Amino acid sequence: MREVVAFLGLGANIGDRERAIRTAVERLGVTPGIRVLRVSSLRETELVGDGPPQGMFLNGACSIATSLPASALLSVCKALELAAGRTLPAPRNHPRALDVDLLLFGEEHIDTKELTVPHPRLFERAFVLEPLRELGVSEQALSDLRPMPAPRLVTTTREFQAICSTWIEGGCLTGLVPTMGALHAGHGSLFECARKECDRVAATIFVNPKQFGPKEDLAAYPRDLPGDLRLCAKSGVDVVFAPSPAEMYAPGFASNIDVGAEGETMEGATRPGHFRGVSTVVARLFAIARPHRAYFGQKDAQQVAVLRRLVRDLGFPLRLVECPTVREADGLAMSSRNVYLDAKDRAAAPVIHRALRAAQQAFAGGLRDRDALVQVATAVLAGEPRATIDYLELRSEGDLLPLPIGPVAGGRMLAAVRFSGGRTVRLLDNMSVVASFENSGS
Amino acid sequence: MREVVAFLGLGANIGDRERAIRTAVERLGVTPGIRVLRVSSLRETELVGDGPPQGMFLNGACSIATSLPASALLSVCKALELAAGRTLPAPRNHPRALDVDLLLFGEEHIDTKELTVPHPRLFERAFVLEPLRELGVSEQALSDLRPMPAPRLVTTTREFQAICSTWIEGGCLTGLVPTMGALHAGHGSLFECARKECDRVAATIFVNPKQFGPKEDLAAYPRDLPGDLRLCAKSGVDVVFAPSPAEMYAPGFASNIDVGAEGETMEGATRPGHFRGVSTVVARLFAIARPHRAYFGQKDAQQVAVLRRLVRDLGFPLRLVECPTVREADGLAMSSRNVYLDAKDRAAAPVIHRALRAAQQAFAGGLRDRDALVQVATAVLAGEPRATIDYLELRSEGDLLPLPIGPVAGGRMLAAVRFSGGRTVRLLDNMSVVASFENSGS
Repeated sequence: MREVVAFLGLGANIGDRERAIRTAVERLGVTPGIRVLRVSSLRETELVGDGPPQGMFLNGACSIATSLPASALLSVCKALELAAGRTLPAPRNHPRALDVDLLLFGEEHIDTKELTVPHPRLFERAFVLEPLRELGVSEQALSDLRPMPAPRLVTTTREFQAICSTWIEGGCLTGLVPTMGALHAGHGSLFECARKECDRVAATIFVNPKQFGPKEDLAAYPRDLPGDLRLCAKSGVDVVFAPSPAEMYAPGFASNIDVGAEGETMEGATRPGHFRGVSTVVARLFAIARPHRAYFGQKDAQQVAVLRRLVRDLGFPLRLVECPTVREADGLAMSSRNVYLDAKDRAAAPVIHRALRAAQQAFAGGLRDRDALVQVATAVLAGEPRATIDYLELRSEGDLLPLPIGPVAGGRMLAAVRFSGGRTVRLLDNMSVVASFENSGS
Repeated sequence: MREVVAFLGLGANIGDRERAIRTAVERLGVTPGIRVLRVSSLRETELVGDGPPQGMFLNGACSIATSLPASALLSVCKALELAAGRTLPAPRNHPRALDVDLLLFGEEHIDTKELTVPHPRLFERAFVLEPLRELGVSEQALSDLRPMPAPRLVTTTREFQAICSTWIEGGCLTGLVPTMGALHAGHGSLFECARKECDRVAATIFVNPKQFGPKEDLAAYPRDLPGDLRLCAKSGVDVVFAPSPAEMYAPGFASNIDVGAEGETMEGATRPGHFRGVSTVVARLFAIARPHRAYFGQKDAQQVAVLRRLVRDLGFPLRLVECPTVREADGLAMSSRNVYLDAKDRAAAPVIHRALRAAQQAFAGGLRDRDALVQVATAVLAGEPRATIDYLELRSEGDLLPLPIGPVAGGRMLAAVRFSGGRTVRLLDNMSVVASFENSGS
């Protein structure tokens, strides 16, 4: 069986620090599958990062030859910490009786839930780098092992599949955020939500030709990959998949996904084939990435309803997470298309939000008739001559099915409104009519 | 951190057997994260199973309390075997300087590539069960831990998803064999192929209503779940997923998968919507199970071509494996529908195979014209009055696209032939025209 040379970081800042470190090295030496090769000198360092006031650390490193896999070695390190009196999981940056970190494991890059190797903070920390140099790790080796800064950009299906497979097999809860790029704070909130819930986050950036109609703005759709990558980096996205159309749709592509009659109403009526294109590209992304969770904005509520059915129908084992619409200070829902509004249309556009809130307010005041509620919002929009209603409907919450004429117990009002001062810009928004005012963004 | 009580089997049959076992127990006792609780008495046993002539085993077991996860404990056991002079991987049933097996790990069932707990052969082996009883494992505990015999039958998407996820996250190469049940030796060869290549094999049994036309034999399609389960058991299938139609298609199901124009030729022309139904159900099974490989019979060659495109178009990260057609002694391709042939039709049906071989033979003899090759097979079928040709086409190998009129460099001939002596039975077969005669089944 192959032995691997690994490097462990050793540290302590309470109790008999040197004794704790020496004992750990001795115990490593008698562990089946581990031979200790060399131990570095020990040095005093301050705590790096925030934390309560505490004593200086004693730090060092050792090299070992091991037949254990990295995950087993990690378990042994944790057992040593436990035996030294440390309680796990330890609060971050609190005093520690013993710290044993797996720094390097041969030349391997490891990216699992439990373990990232090389150790993610290795390259920023002198108190780790110095002992490694002392143990004979060359600058060249360190530079070869230095990981690419996140987000890693990949453009081929094969690479993206491989990364996602590594995550899944490494036990990582994986989140996917499909986008068409031209990212704004609305997307930022999706990344943030994914980052909070998942071990690894992948964003995709693909302006999907299949979801644009022949007369639509595919070529003119805004694109800004450098800016998108900066937002992804800031949001802690691990990998960005930005394929070309040819990479997504091979010649002879024929496996399009139908969406049924509901996909032909509202957005689907105005944009024939739109949801077929959305479902097809999202099914492909789900098949490739196999995420545990996928994040979409509530601003595109009908898209979410269509995709919920796709997930249920085809049995994708994932949770679809719907994130609240993010708005500008004046209430306008954030959208990549807002940049196309000329100054006067931009000033007029918050009328959509006011119209939806007026319906909400009317509901709160006791109005229950479906068409009367729609009429309240229509009247507000009619007061803005720059706005033309494409559709305005009150539908059931969640699945967005049509509601019968007459009184309603609630629902979601969906609007598509055109502004044509400069070029024609079509904006979407929607709102629950039963939401409280404090929470009217959702 | 939680400690788990685990039981290890210890054995040796060369060298100083007792010393090897005692040394292993001592080394376990100093391993970080392990406390040895009790060691059983040691007993002499014969080798179980085939193997070269060799000495008696000394066998026992020990109980430990451990904070290590099971996979790390397994690595420690392997390291102990290595240290005792054993070379890994060891040939099966050869003499061993030391055997350390993880028998039980708390009450956990573990099913990963590296590890199956409880140990798969535990319940058949007195020399393992006796030491466990001596260490205080009750009959009740053993009975509770006894795994269900394979294949495990599941009927819900959720259960099937969960099992497949465990396999994937446990590093198992997973094979899927989708079937409509009524299994025969043809399916058996798919299972066998999957068993040879994969760590875990799942079969699905679902008579898919979506791939039957309104006038087709859905209700009459043969069903035999007990017989199917017996074949799966014999073939080493780990799990059988046999859902109801309602479990597969929820009310409001709308996400059907188109297959393009090629899916409307040959089988698709005779059976409108057939490949749409096939693609939809298979996409759902791929989404649920996320297999690394999926196995289909070459008898349904057009189905394989359609599914290859589905896999490519939607990006499912799997390899589609096409297995050779299995034939009766007289050349008839095995099919679940063969049982419907009356005696005279059954006697006549091998004419399809003879017709395809005649075309192959003509090609070997130098005939290259597309239509002339089809004519050779047509003439053979015309000689059998019980047979009516539904279609007979020579298409390109692999993607099965139409070939132009004139000379061909090769191709695959596909036939659908009806027999109507009793009820009408439609049989499919196909063959490469360039295959050698020795290998004409493929």
